[in-house]
Amino acid sequence: MVIRNLPRQDASATTDVCAIGNAIVDVIAECDEAFLEAQGITKGGMTLIDEQQAAALYKKMGPAIEMSGGAAANTAAGIASLGGTPSYIGKVKNDQFGIVFCHDMKSSGVEFLTSALQEGPATAQCLILVTPDAQRSMNTYLGACVDLFPEDIDVALVQKAQVTYLEGYLFDKPKAQEAFYLAAKTVHEAKRCLALSLSDTFCVDRHRDGFLKLVRDEVDFLIGNEMELISLYQTSSFDEAMEKARQQCSIVVGTRSEKGAVIVSGEETHIIQAEKAESVLDTTGAGDLFAAGFLYGVTHGHDLETSGRLGAIAASEIISHYGPRPQRELKAYVQEKKIKI
Amino acid sequence: MVIRNLPRQDASATTDVCAIGNAIVDVIAECDEAFLEAQGITKGGMTLIDEQQAAALYKKMGPAIEMSGGAAANTAAGIASLGGTPSYIGKVKNDQFGIVFCHDMKSSGVEFLTSALQEGPATAQCLILVTPDAQRSMNTYLGACVDLFPEDIDVALVQKAQVTYLEGYLFDKPKAQEAFYLAAKTVHEAKRCLALSLSDTFCVDRHRDGFLKLVRDEVDFLIGNEMELISLYQTSSFDEAMEKARQQCSIVVGTRSEKGAVIVSGEETHIIQAEKAESVLDTTGAGDLFAAGFLYGVTHGHDLETSGRLGAIAASEIISHYGPRPQRELKAYVQEKKIKI
Repeated sequence: MVIRNLPRQDASATTDVCAIGNAIVDVIAECDEAFLEAQGITKGGMTLIDEQQAAALYKKMGPAIEMSGGAAANTAAGIASLGGTPSYIGKVKNDQFGIVFCHDMKSSGVEFLTSALQEGPATAQCLILVTPDAQRSMNTYLGACVDLFPEDIDVALVQKAQVTYLEGYLFDKPKAQEAFYLAAKTVHEAKRCLALSLSDTFCVDRHRDGFLKLVRDEVDFLIGNEMELISLYQTSSFDEAMEKARQQCSIVVGTRSEKGAVIVSGEETHIIQAEKAESVLDTTGAGDLFAAGFLYGVTHGHDLETSGRLGAIAASEIISHYGPRPQRELKAYVQEKKIKI
Repeated sequence: MVIRNLPRQDASATTDVCAIGNAIVDVIAECDEAFLEAQGITKGGMTLIDEQQAAALYKKMGPAIEMSGGAAANTAAGIASLGGTPSYIGKVKNDQFGIVFCHDMKSSGVEFLTSALQEGPATAQCLILVTPDAQRSMNTYLGACVDLFPEDIDVALVQKAQVTYLEGYLFDKPKAQEAFYLAAKTVHEAKRCLALSLSDTFCVDRHRDGFLKLVRDEVDFLIGNEMELISLYQTSSFDEAMEKARQQCSIVVGTRSEKGAVIVSGEETHIIQAEKAESVLDTTGAGDLFAAGFLYGVTHGHDLETSGRLGAIAASEIISHYGPRPQRELKAYVQEKKIKI
């Protein structure tokens, strides 16, 4: 049985969560199913593309909105909007999109100090195509992201956070994996908690052995959706995957879109209902914001049930508009639902 | 009495409207009333700022969304969304925001060929602050816009458009004024129509004599809101201003926000009701989209009443979401309202 490691709100834990991930600006456009098919894009997934592919796809896309994105960055912004104290580590270039990304993080209330690249590849872009069913298909040009190196891990930022949260997408680059292992080491030495989001089924598939080792050896809180967890453990059912994860991590969060989520921890099992959204326009960021609510909850002494409910409420706000960052203050939104935070 | 000049849908008129304006990317953030006051920003207006002021204000603003904007450019995108054939003349730099602007115009279906600057000032940005009452206060760094010169006026583009539409904001730069007079000359030689949007009360105030001369000598269709028209003619009432304008232009469109609009032409007077919006989130672009509906109407043989109604419907779509470009196809939206276009 796993030794349970839970967040400690001691005096030296001056922030809630340090999120580490790919710093990306999202370029969001609507499209129909035929467009995805013609471009050979897998619906609902995330595909890595190079600069030329990005330029070619952008040319074919409809008019777009630009907004800061990046999975862990969205989670950090969500935690700030809930009234928490997040920090962030991620790499941009000092170009217009990089300036936009930095501005949005800092003005959201996220501590963000990672130095920007002065030359080399551009700030990462994610070309997001939203179909009429509100599903998003992501095509990411990683650009400057690839240059997140171990030396970018601000050890002090990790040490003072109750939880350090990593996005699985980082696994796509060896140097970023190294950076992550440095963060994990720092987390454990400081007796903090490490959380991992599996990010994407295809990402799990590309790096299954790496993820399995990481989860077994390092991860306290594992967060993934139904398909990602099934893919990680190669089980035939969600329940089976959750049981395997339960043996390895202190807390496991399995999200299931409109079916809500399941949270397991030791012998506890909590079924979390999805929160009804006012409308469902664009599901980009739903998982990231569920993680935000959940992490805010567990770093503020809430029980798993309440933490899960905070996740469901934060996700319901995000899917009601375009883009992965909150458009209203989540703290007030949660309080409207009669939850005291 | 004014000689009435109305659009001719002859064989050589292969596009509906050529819009000429400041090519701008909007940076849209929410704020409260106190923020506007602290920054000394006039609510509802447009203030010109320099690069340093833009950087300082951006730093203080909350997290933002970036979207292509620019008054006449919004109108052109709206006409395309209605199924019309717009073209556009405006100046950007070849930077990330310039690329975004060009992409959004072309992918909206707007013919846009103006060459981008390779060096010099950045693509124009408008920092838009939206208060909880959905009012927008705009702070514009003109950047590359100032380099719209007479040689950028694509004479062929103007000649083949039934209507050439100019935004009053161009009056802020002498070279752009020159460009406009060249466009006006081309319009009249080709026996086309010239439309002018007054754009902004403060802009009218800065250039009253220039605007009055232009309206009297060149403009067939004058479009402005209540306050702009009152400011132009320095009358004590909207009705009085409309009567003065009626004597000078073939068609005058006076918009009045939630009170709808008035369209006068010769002896005709039409009262247009505002179209009820699903919700009112951000009024940015409402006037631009009214112009889009109106111009689409008059260039497609609709009467003034119907053209006004198209304007009201297009405006109602824009104010229901953030940003000044349509988020659903306006043609379908209008057809839902049982108007055949």
